[in-house]
Amino acid sequence: MLLCDIGNTSYHFYDGDSDYKQSVDSFDPAEISDEVYYISVNPSLVTRLVSLSNWKDLSTYISREDYYETMGIDRIVACEAIEEGVIIDAGSAVTVDVVKAGQFQGGFIYPGLHAMQKAYSDISSRLAFSFDFELDLDKMPKNSPDAVSYGYLRTLYSEVLRHDGPFFLTGGDAELFGHVFPMADIDRHLIFRGMQKIITRVAQC
Amino acid sequence: MLLCDIGNTSYHFYDGDSDYKQSVDSFDPAEISDEVYYISVNPSLVTRLVSLSNWKDLSTYISREDYYETMGIDRIVACEAIEEGVIIDAGSAVTVDVVKAGQFQGGFIYPGLHAMQKAYSDISSRLAFSFDFELDLDKMPKNSPDAVSYGYLRTLYSEVLRHDGPFFLTGGDAELFGHVFPMADIDRHLIFRGMQKIITRVAQC
Repeated sequence: MLLCDIGNTSYHFYDGDSDYKQSVDSFDPAEISDEVYYISVNPSLVTRLVSLSNWKDLSTYISREDYYETMGIDRIVACEAIEEGVIIDAGSAVTVDVVKAGQFQGGFIYPGLHAMQKAYSDISSRLAFSFDFELDLDKMPKNSPDAVSYGYLRTLYSEVLRHDGPFFLTGGDAELFGHVFPMADIDRHLIFRGMQKIITRVAQC
Repeated sequence: MLLCDIGNTSYHFYDGDSDYKQSVDSFDPAEISDEVYYISVNPSLVTRLVSLSNWKDLSTYISREDYYETMGIDRIVACEAIEEGVIIDAGSAVTVDVVKAGQFQGGFIYPGLHAMQKAYSDISSRLAFSFDFELDLDKMPKNSPDAVSYGYLRTLYSEVLRHDGPFFLTGGDAELFGHVFPMADIDRHLIFRGMQKIITRVAQC
């Protein structure tokens, strides 16, 4: 059995042990004869995958009314992985979702580091700095690069800290944001844990 | 006597009563025979203004070592206007500066609303929403437009609230941000108050 999280550019596989990616453009899902449980935010692959009987769409086993209509299936499945706490998924966007007693409480969307860096440099070339993820966020900045890093990172941190933990960090930039959220568990496989939990639940029914 | 805050695109005049703007491209500063006290972030006008004896550069009367080297003169003069509190200057960037007992404590820079809106829409067309400045920021969002507005506004709000007031809102988008910071004094002329304070101090010396 394989798990697969399909994004706009890649198939992200997990065999319960290790993970690897395949490009959406070049990979043929028919190459796999194993059973694959997947979720996908990529609408262009739906018809192809439905025609393959060993590819099973896990999204059909989720009570979507517990979430909101336009919420990405990847965010939903990450929330399913935990019973309590805050999930920070740091990718092209940073999504922050709150779960209490197994119930989704709401969440917000903040720009990922590349989009945000571009936002600063669009305002002025004098603000075109790389973010310093190791900046001391307890000190008010007294120079321009720190003022920009603090503006991006401390605002997010101050809001996240209003919520009760535990805190989970996932997504491609999880390690970088780990410097900002040292209290968070870095779990690159959170979404796969959510998928496994759904499979177990379905098997018990 | 006139006060003038010169930006990259306009001369912003204040006669102690009302304010008006002139375009940097078309306005000739020699047209004015009154005494003008000015600050300028526009390096291209320096030579022109120095040649006019009635235009007096107020930045020469500021102890710049109380601030930091690359800090804009407009931010510095706004800080000079207050003895205590937080200044939120909402323009193309949102700058937040903290002053305690007349001393600058540091500050940070956050993207202004246009740059931030572009940051979200650059990530995905599904995040291309206008910000709702009247959103209830005490409720975790459960739809995409709210998740984006909350991501931009609540993060900033949570960080600003860590600091002691009073809070002052200035800049071109001060009224909009007034919905987010209802406890803040909206003072569109804060920078001119700072300039007046410097003039009074210099006159007393």
